[in-house]
Parts: sequence; C-alpha cells; structure tokens
Amino acid sequence: MSASSPHLGDIGSAELDEIYQFAVELGKNAGQKLMDGVHARIGGSISGISSDDANMTSNLAFTEKDSSVDIVTQVDEDVEHFIHEAIKTKYPTHKFIGEETYAKTSSSAREYLITSSDPTWCVDPLDGTVNYTHMFPMFCVSIAFILGGRPIIGVIYAPMLHQLFSSCVGRGAWLNESTRLPLIRNAPASDKRAFNDINDNIGIPPMPSNAPSKCVFSCEWGKDRRNIPGGNMRRKIDSFVNMAAEKGGENGDGLQGMVHGVRSLGSATLDLAYTAMGSLDIWWEGGCWEWDVAAGIAILLEAGGLVTTANPPEDPETAAIEETKLGSRLYLAIRPAGPSATETGRQSQERTVREVWKRVKLLDYTRPGL
Amino acid sequence: MSASSPHLGDIGSAELDEIYQFAVELGKNAGQKLMDGVHARIGGSISGISSDDANMTSNLAFTEKDSSVDIVTQVDEDVEHFIHEAIKTKYPTHKFIGEETYAKTSSSAREYLITSSDPTWCVDPLDGTVNYTHMFPMFCVSIAFILGGRPIIGVIYAPMLHQLFSSCVGRGAWLNESTRLPLIRNAPASDKRAFNDINDNIGIPPMPSNAPSKCVFSCEWGKDRRNIPGGNMRRKIDSFVNMAAEKGGENGDGLQGMVHGVRSLGSATLDLAYTAMGSLDIWWEGGCWEWDVAAGIAILLEAGGLVTTANPPEDPETAAIEETKLGSRLYLAIRPAGPSATETGRQSQERTVREVWKRVKLLDYTRPGL
Repeated sequence: MSASSPHLGDIGSAELDEIYQFAVELGKNAGQKLMDGVHARIGGSISGISSDDANMTSNLAFTEKDSSVDIVTQVDEDVEHFIHEAIKTKYPTHKFIGEETYAKTSSSAREYLITSSDPTWCVDPLDGTVNYTHMFPMFCVSIAFILGGRPIIGVIYAPMLHQLFSSCVGRGAWLNESTRLPLIRNAPASDKRAFNDINDNIGIPPMPSNAPSKCVFSCEWGKDRRNIPGGNMRRKIDSFVNMAAEKGGENGDGLQGMVHGVRSLGSATLDLAYTAMGSLDIWWEGGCWEWDVAAGIAILLEAGGLVTTANPPEDPETAAIEETKLGSRLYLAIRPAGPSATETGRQSQERTVREVWKRVKLLDYTRPGL
Repeated sequence: MSASSPHLGDIGSAELDEIYQFAVELGKNAGQKLMDGVHARIGGSISGISSDDANMTSNLAFTEKDSSVDIVTQVDEDVEHFIHEAIKTKYPTHKFIGEETYAKTSSSAREYLITSSDPTWCVDPLDGTVNYTHMFPMFCVSIAFILGGRPIIGVIYAPMLHQLFSSCVGRGAWLNESTRLPLIRNAPASDKRAFNDINDNIGIPPMPSNAPSKCVFSCEWGKDRRNIPGGNMRRKIDSFVNMAAEKGGENGDGLQGMVHGVRSLGSATLDLAYTAMGSLDIWWEGGCWEWDVAAGIAILLEAGGLVTTANPPEDPETAAIEETKLGSRLYLAIRPAGPSATETGRQSQERTVREVWKRVKLLDYTRPGL
C-alpha cells in the first residue's frame, strides 16, 4: 500500500482527487451532525474560545423526553444514512459497508467484509460511542475508500476536538488539510504543494533506540472483560504490564518495556489517527472491525507508519513482518519514523514491532481463514 | 468548600470577580504560549477546521538544533515565569506555588505545600508533559487561587483541544466561559446569568443505580512502575481489573465493577476537568501533587462533584466520606450528580464512593501527618 504503487486500476488521478475531496466534505458534514447531537443534548451550542463555533448551532430537534441512549442511537443511524445516501447519489456503482447497516443485516460478523476488488466505502458513522454518550471528546466519524482491497483514502473527523485527519494515496496525510502528518518533524510541515516528496521521511525522529522505552503506548481494555484464565482481558493485562513495567522488578527476562506512558482513549479510530500524527508511538489491539480501522490505516500508512498483526509469531526476532490484512481484527501500529545514523526509519519500526511482540500475549479474536 | 459558605475572609465580591477575570485571562495567555511551543516545533501553525486559529501564530524563536526535550523544558519554565511575574505585578502580597519553581528550590516534596490561610496561587504551567512532548493534545495549564487552604478559583486551559475550564466559588463552573458544567443536564446550560441557581443540580443525571457499572472510569498508570509485590503498580492493576471485570469470572465476592469504559489520558488535571464536565464518572489516582489537582478540584466542586480519598477505609460501607485534603496525594473524584426518585445527587455520589472503595487497593503515597 505504499504511495509509489497505488494500484489505482481504472481510476485516474483527476478522479481520485475528486473522490478525495468528496470524502473530506462528507466527513466534515457528518462530523457536524455528530456535534448537532451534542448540542441538542446540552440544550445549546458550545462556544469556542474564539468565535470558531458560531456555525455550530443544532438543526436537529430532539424532545426533552428522549433519553441520551435514544439520541445517540438515532444520531448513529442518521449519520450513517446521510453518508450512505450521499455516496449512492454521487457514486451509484460503488459498494458500501457501514457499521449500522451491517449490524442490521448480518447474523454473523465472522466473514471478511472486504472481499471484492471493486471500489468500496467502509464507514463508521460514530467511533467511540461510549465517549459520545458521555460527551467525552474522543469520538469521530470514519470514512475509508477502498480499492483492490486496500484503503487508499481515509477521512477521520473528531468535531469536538476540532481535528480532521485525511489522506489519499500518494498525496500525503494531513491534519486539518494544511499540516502534514506526522506533526513531529524538523522540516517545515505546512507546504502542501510539495506532495511529490510526500514519502520523504527526513526530519521525522526514528523510533527510540531502546523502544518500547520512551514510547507512548496506546491500548484499550475493550468489551471482552471476562476475568478467566486464558481470556482476552487477562492476556491484555499481562501484555500491558510487560510494556509498562520498570526494569528491576519481577517478570524477569528483560521484558520490562518501561514505556513513557500508557494511554487508553476508547476509540480505535483515533488511536490510529494519533499514531499517524506521531503522538502515540505504538498501538496494540485486538477485536476491531473493518469500519473501526479502515480510514485510520489509510492515514497511518500514508503518513509513513507501519501496521501489522498484534499477535506475536513463534519467533518474533526473525519472523516476516507482514502487511496487515484488513479484517484480521488484530493490529499493531507503529508511528512514522525517519532514519538515524545507523537505521532507516523502516528498520527502526520493525525493530520496535519485534520488541512489542516479545512482550505481548496472543489474543483470541479469530475469523475464518486465519 | 460549598458555594454557600465561601470563606472569603476580607475579599469582597467585586475583588473576587476581578481575581477570577485575571486568572481566566492568565490561563488563556499561558495556554497560547504552550501552543506557540507546539507551532515552533512543527515549523508552522495548525490551522483550525474553520479559521479559528488564525491568531495562533508562534512568537517564540527556537533554533533548529534545539531538541524537543530542550524546547519542552524551556516552554515549561517560560510559562511558569510568565504566570509568576503577572501575579507578582498584579497581586504582590499573594503567595505563589508553582511546579517548576518548587522543583528548583526544594529538596523534599514530603511537606504539605499549602499551609497558610493567606491568598495563594498554585500553578502547573504544563500538566501532561509527556503528552506535550509527543504533541498528544491532552495537555494544559492549570491555575488555582486558594484562600483559607481551599481552592476557590480554578482555570484549566487545554489549547490544542480548544477547551477552557473555569470556576469561581458561588459563580458556577464553565466550559469556554459560556456553557455550564456539567455538560449533561436536561435543563438549558447556556444561561450564564442564572448563577444564583448554580447549585441547582436538577436535570443532571444521578449516578447509575448499579455504579460503577455504566460508569466511565479514569485512571493513570503513573510513574511508579516497579513490578514488585505490594508495589503501587500491582495495587493499581488489581484495582483496575476489579473495576473493569464482568460478573461471572474470577475474583468472586461480587467485586466485578463492569465499568462502561476505562480511560487513561496522562493528565491528572484533565481527568478532573472531564469529571467536572460529567464525561468521566469516576477518577481514582494516587501520587499527584498540589499543582496537579488544585484547579481541577476547584472546578469539580463548583460543578457539583465530590472529591475524597482514594484509599479505602477499614469499613467502606459506613466510614465517613471526608472532604479531600489538598496535598493528600490520594484522590477519588465523582462527577456531579442530580437527584433520582429515591436519592439525592449527593447520596448517589456517596454510594458510588463506597462501591469504588470496595474494589480498590490501598496505595502507598505518604506524607507527614497522614
């Protein structure tokens, strides 16, 4: 999925630009509808520090008796319907996979959802539903455009954070359409015209030489909270502890990861977006569905990040580091990295993957064919 | 610290308003300086979705050779100096406690820092330093004004999130100066004039009847990561697992908290701010210093929240729920809550405190006199 081999098939550059622009506008409008739901619940709009939110007045009409759960469900369905209709109108031949639509029509989620090489949209109208219900700002809309089974356009908009992440294969990844991702680089980041050099990772810091030490590690507790031996929660906790522990205590074997910080945001989509930004160094998770990660993977890869499987192979030191399979439900993401005196950026990312694999347990989220 | 007994001593209402307005402006200006540091590091400004950040161009001059750590340390010190000078100029008789100043002048942090009843400012120029270093948006400046040992004004500004939290005793707690906290309430939230009724918690949801179930639980891994028996990390992990686990697995005793979500943001100050907002239901932490929590406690209490000790008493069912002691380093915060048909808001908060105490371990962060 590198920018130099976009696999665009019949889609030309101008058409790709048009699809990208359409996706960005769709994401902005959908995010605005999420904020409308927030404003309806608080009975007014949240003003910005400046006057930036003057346009954010609600146009949804909820009655006072509606419960917060009713409103959230309604917003979720309305926003997916809005996105689906817009896509059907503009691109009637494209396929569509959305979380809400899928939940209503399928009895099993055990099949791979992206099986065709046709142009396909993969949409989560609201990622971070629990956050949204609680009005914690870490929620977003996620829109991916997939071609040949690969997400090549990604749009993630977190309206309460004022952050729009977007990418198109070969055109770079961006915050708010004007600042290149990752944010952290020593070269000027604001020259959007220079997208011919978008794969230039000079100035981006390499992964720390003793990673995962000095890394910010992002992980989620997830929904599988059965506290049973061999269950996913215990495997996760053991992994988190290995990543977090200082050297010198127990667990021996030099496995103590000593990460700089452990973060849990409650949104897989935003975990990927912040990894693309370079703010999270490592994200490790199991159990996500395609709509949770498709746009985030597009953005992370275009920013220069790496995504592979969460589950460690038998020999983490030598196993091939394979590109993630959309739908595998098991993800390990590493932020974009530039070269050091002794390694390429990619080498420092792969070294980090192996160090994470040594410290984490196998998670049990299977799918046919895996 | 209730609004009905402000303990204002010699400070009259007009003077209090003036101090509040001064603190809010100081917070805004200090937060702008934090963003200047971000912009300096990325070599440009981050544009907003709208044109809201047009005024956010950097006026700091860093050279390209400065490392990110140098820049962060410099920003931290510069912002504290800026705040300290502004306070010295405006209120030369007030005392000042700041994280950076304190770290340079004290060999031990084991003494209580707020020992006088005199007007005192307690300032963290940059909370969430790891986040700031990584340009993860969960960082902020925190400014508290303390009288009689109680924080009565709080200002927290997270500039990259576009969120300003502020409160003054008897005048309510606010997001961006215009939306009352907590956000979640059925009554209109935007009528700032009605501050006579600021303690009216009608419309704010009570704590869930089976809390901590259905609650968003916020906790931090912290800096003490020694993986040793009886160490704080293991005590924390055991507590997190008790709060998170589903019923039906191990640990027995009905201790499974089944919280709706577990969040770790990496900023104690913002944990408190989001608890005041109602977005986090429960925050439980040990190890914070006064500057980490003073402004957040002011805002949370004014919003109608509760803060007590993190460490469970011998009989969590019957022990008195005492007001937190600033400097105790052990905090359990519960979001604002309104009445149900069977309980007052306060009763639902106290019930939640007891349910948390049953599930958490004693943490070891001592101070003389505790």
